[in-house]
Amino acid sequence: MSCNKIITITRQYGSGGRDIGRALAQKLEVSFYDKELITLAAKESGVHPEVFEEVDERPTNSLLYSLSTGLFRYGNGFSTMNDLPVNDRLYILQHKIIKELAEKENFVVVGRCADYVLRDCPNVVKVYIYADIDSRVQRAVERQEIDPARAKQAVLKADKNRANYYSFYSGKKWGLVENYDLCINSTHISDAQAVDLIIKYIDILNQA
Amino acid sequence: MSCNKIITITRQYGSGGRDIGRALAQKLEVSFYDKELITLAAKESGVHPEVFEEVDERPTNSLLYSLSTGLFRYGNGFSTMNDLPVNDRLYILQHKIIKELAEKENFVVVGRCADYVLRDCPNVVKVYIYADIDSRVQRAVERQEIDPARAKQAVLKADKNRANYYSFYSGKKWGLVENYDLCINSTHISDAQAVDLIIKYIDILNQA
Repeated sequence: MSCNKIITITRQYGSGGRDIGRALAQKLEVSFYDKELITLAAKESGVHPEVFEEVDERPTNSLLYSLSTGLFRYGNGFSTMNDLPVNDRLYILQHKIIKELAEKENFVVVGRCADYVLRDCPNVVKVYIYADIDSRVQRAVERQEIDPARAKQAVLKADKNRANYYSFYSGKKWGLVENYDLCINSTHISDAQAVDLIIKYIDILNQA
Repeated sequence: MSCNKIITITRQYGSGGRDIGRALAQKLEVSFYDKELITLAAKESGVHPEVFEEVDERPTNSLLYSLSTGLFRYGNGFSTMNDLPVNDRLYILQHKIIKELAEKENFVVVGRCADYVLRDCPNVVKVYIYADIDSRVQRAVERQEIDPARAKQAVLKADKNRANYYSFYSGKKWGLVENYDLCINSTHISDAQAVDLIIKYIDILNQA
């Protein structure tokens, strides 16, 4: 497929990856896709955005089953999309939207297995943002106004959900360095500094 | 412990990590330690460097056993260092030398679990260099003048040795992002560009 310049951001919960992605998109003056993908998927499918919001980046076990039984024929002349659980419908729609966007414009996208979805695109820069557990818990405490014990639970649970989602749809293990071009520990640097580092990497690629 | 500014480079075999480390040390005008640690350990122990060379970055199962049985008393008034296998003697000596150097000077060190050995040093920047398997095999073909099949075997075996060595002595898994500050995929960039990126990261830390 032909693709524009795209940066995919995979992020541990509480690492600041989403904020870094948004700031990066602003600095590069390109589009930013995160929850925006839910809005687009809702628009395309007629499903209420809140329904998709509930299941975003969570896997079910049903898609592979549907594929294996031949129940799923989306894009092959007739569609049983409405028979699929919303998780799988959202994944399929987001997958399709990400690929369509990649042919049209430059952007930064956060999560949604985008690094896997765009694996055949030559211009994609795949970044992983992570941080020490204590700093992630601290971020969750501040953002959600909960105590540290609950924040730690939330962080670990979110990681688990993302790892399951990623491995379910990609068949690969989430968070392994091999899946990415650049992995940045955000613990000791600001979001703006992480952005600078990613831009430095992109500049280097443009020289190469 | 009080420490100088140190960069530890952990590298997949064939990723160019050693060359990147050496070039980084040159650019920063600091010492570089790789095989140099063997020379220092040989000098301190009286063991011939070639003996240590043979077992460098390879674990045995004996050290933990010796520790657990109380056989090992190095540094506690009397020493049974001579009773230990050379792998363990080399690890202990390198460990001690790395810590001593960290109190004396700034440097770049490659491998030898240095990120783990210096885990209590606040100024250590931990970098992981990795690359796609094909490019690592290609590097091994060029360096060792062997065919691709043998080169691939060599790459995978070296990874396995390093992973075993690291987990044996540190109790942690080798190559997990969480152990490092910055992980760089060297597949699509030159050694000099990887050096630039590491220096950018160091500059950012100095701003922070």
